[in-house]
Amino acid sequence: MSLSRKKLDHFMKKKIGIIGLGTIGEATLRSLKKYSSLINKRSSVDIEIKKVCDLNRNKSRVASKFSIPYTPDPYELINDPDIDIIVELIGGIQPAKKYILKSFQKGKDVVTANKALLARCGKDIFAAAKKFKRNIGFEGSVCGAIPLIRSISEGLIGCEVTKLYGVLNGTTNYILCKMEKESMDFSAALKEAQAKGFAEKKSRLDVEGIDTLHKLAILSYLCFGVWPDLEDVHVRGISSISLSDIIYARELSYKIKLLAVAKKENNKLDLRIHPAFVPDEHPIAQVNSAFNAVWLEAKPAGQLLFYGEGAGGAPTSSSVISDIANISFEKARFINEKGTICLKSTGNVMSRYYIRFMARDFPGVLAKASKILASFNISIASVTQKER
Amino acid sequence: MSLSRKKLDHFMKKKIGIIGLGTIGEATLRSLKKYSSLINKRSSVDIEIKKVCDLNRNKSRVASKFSIPYTPDPYELINDPDIDIIVELIGGIQPAKKYILKSFQKGKDVVTANKALLARCGKDIFAAAKKFKRNIGFEGSVCGAIPLIRSISEGLIGCEVTKLYGVLNGTTNYILCKMEKESMDFSAALKEAQAKGFAEKKSRLDVEGIDTLHKLAILSYLCFGVWPDLEDVHVRGISSISLSDIIYARELSYKIKLLAVAKKENNKLDLRIHPAFVPDEHPIAQVNSAFNAVWLEAKPAGQLLFYGEGAGGAPTSSSVISDIANISFEKARFINEKGTICLKSTGNVMSRYYIRFMARDFPGVLAKASKILASFNISIASVTQKER
Repeated sequence: MSLSRKKLDHFMKKKIGIIGLGTIGEATLRSLKKYSSLINKRSSVDIEIKKVCDLNRNKSRVASKFSIPYTPDPYELINDPDIDIIVELIGGIQPAKKYILKSFQKGKDVVTANKALLARCGKDIFAAAKKFKRNIGFEGSVCGAIPLIRSISEGLIGCEVTKLYGVLNGTTNYILCKMEKESMDFSAALKEAQAKGFAEKKSRLDVEGIDTLHKLAILSYLCFGVWPDLEDVHVRGISSISLSDIIYARELSYKIKLLAVAKKENNKLDLRIHPAFVPDEHPIAQVNSAFNAVWLEAKPAGQLLFYGEGAGGAPTSSSVISDIANISFEKARFINEKGTICLKSTGNVMSRYYIRFMARDFPGVLAKASKILASFNISIASVTQKER
Repeated sequence: MSLSRKKLDHFMKKKIGIIGLGTIGEATLRSLKKYSSLINKRSSVDIEIKKVCDLNRNKSRVASKFSIPYTPDPYELINDPDIDIIVELIGGIQPAKKYILKSFQKGKDVVTANKALLARCGKDIFAAAKKFKRNIGFEGSVCGAIPLIRSISEGLIGCEVTKLYGVLNGTTNYILCKMEKESMDFSAALKEAQAKGFAEKKSRLDVEGIDTLHKLAILSYLCFGVWPDLEDVHVRGISSISLSDIIYARELSYKIKLLAVAKKENNKLDLRIHPAFVPDEHPIAQVNSAFNAVWLEAKPAGQLLFYGEGAGGAPTSSSVISDIANISFEKARFINEKGTICLKSTGNVMSRYYIRFMARDFPGVLAKASKILASFNISIASVTQKER
């Protein structure tokens, strides 16, 4: 075998180290085991998992299940000159951030599914990647299996995104669908979501819209070049949605969805997350169970919809693996755009609203209410009034 | 400026030549003019259109509209050592194939939106690209603006696609929606589609499912590594669909769609194109007007849906430009997979069917019909009988 042939072989063989053996980590091991020959056949890239790590030593059993060397020390991977790509799947801000920055410094590319970290520290992370000329893949951080990051950053590289909205959190969508279909109230639906594994015991991040906020922040950067200050984004979760809201929505031919919205208008960016009435016939209204969907409007591409499984180990592993394979091909991300537009304050957002209130039944109550609305220059599109 | 800096500049500047100034060609010029600064900001790639060509000299006015040098001779572009990428937008088999192969030979990468050519000669084209170590981008060849090629070849690189179906032709979908919504018959809807520019005067390619077949062939290669013999694929268009079929479908809560289907079962590939009953609540049933949508099932990704504008100059230009930008970054396509599965013959496809027939009204006619079906081991799921 000639030297050049040897060099070629080395180029195509990529060694990776995985930190974090939770749901996504374990699924990634399983999927790589099962489908790496497919990747090899399709791309001539040969991916080898050299070693895996989890701070929790109990997770060594996951590694041994797949016959892969285990260490509780992440620096054994980060400092290994033989490893090309570090896959960070532990989640949370620290120590994940520390590990990623150190990996860049050590000349390694990084794949992560850590939306909280990117939403809070994306600027630092991408700046470090640029400084050390390393690639970062983060397809798994938004909407599970949907190849959304790639579609926006590569597919729409020549497009101006003007508007984006979607269902970015499977747990809340599962709860809202349960309430809608089985006329359950919020807490019963939440309990069922927890029992079925769609919601965690600590469901605040999902239910209050924080998880959605993290994903919207990443999409805001990709589409508009803006990392928003998370505190500046209006966020309302679904815990105050009652069954009667769902029923009123149904009567008016709407579904209630926890919607993430990003709109660019006159060089201002309107970012918000709140429950919204979505017309029954809109594809977003038809997103069922724990699925995710994103509606995008861009020039010159037009309207686009992406839909798929938004969470879970197996679906997310497909995104993580696509990043590993594509980075192995040394494909750089397009993450250069500098933001020059600023956030719109929520008070300036013009929109149609749904208001529900209870009132004592006496003559003139509706007249009074509508007069107050009119005094704020709010006009009424439709009214439904029910007896108690 | 040092030599290395100069080299870097050269690396980032890409010169392209466009052959074909029809609808897509002109839209690509317009979009590049408008959005190339966006690409430059996002990727540091600077795309310059060096020269454009159309065999029809009348098209020189398109070039002069955008102040770009024009030639009626494609070899002026193909032989120009200064041009990095040839963008082929003339369509059809020859001379497009000749131009593409020559471009590879001359060391150029190629971007094309030519579905007919890829469906018929994809094997040769990709083999030539491999031989000359050149890249080929063909995002614009399937489903207009939807970043489907990229999503499958890169996003699902670690996935086994098991099933795919979708609406791949906007013209036929526009006609079927018109029939459905305005209770029109086929020929009236076709005329309106032609009047509105959704269908060409020569609409056979669309209406008879040939355009859908071309796109399905390309998807078959991407998902399953198989270039099908086009003659082996069962293709039925929509010209025999009558308004009563649409009305019966509606009564049964279905929509009629011209569906492209690809399914892998027991190492056999089932490829077919025909009008199909799609349940009202399925996202594919809700694809309106000239939109396209593809439903995909893959392991471990799960179910995915891609939806967007399937044709037209502006939407398709977004895909063509994404290829130009990504190839400028020297991103190779993953098109290595060798197919080892064979096509299923249509006779072996098990499926639910819709049968409509007229009969004289005498006692026992339904009994007779059902007996015949039973003798072929066909069971009946539901029956609707109407008086004349």
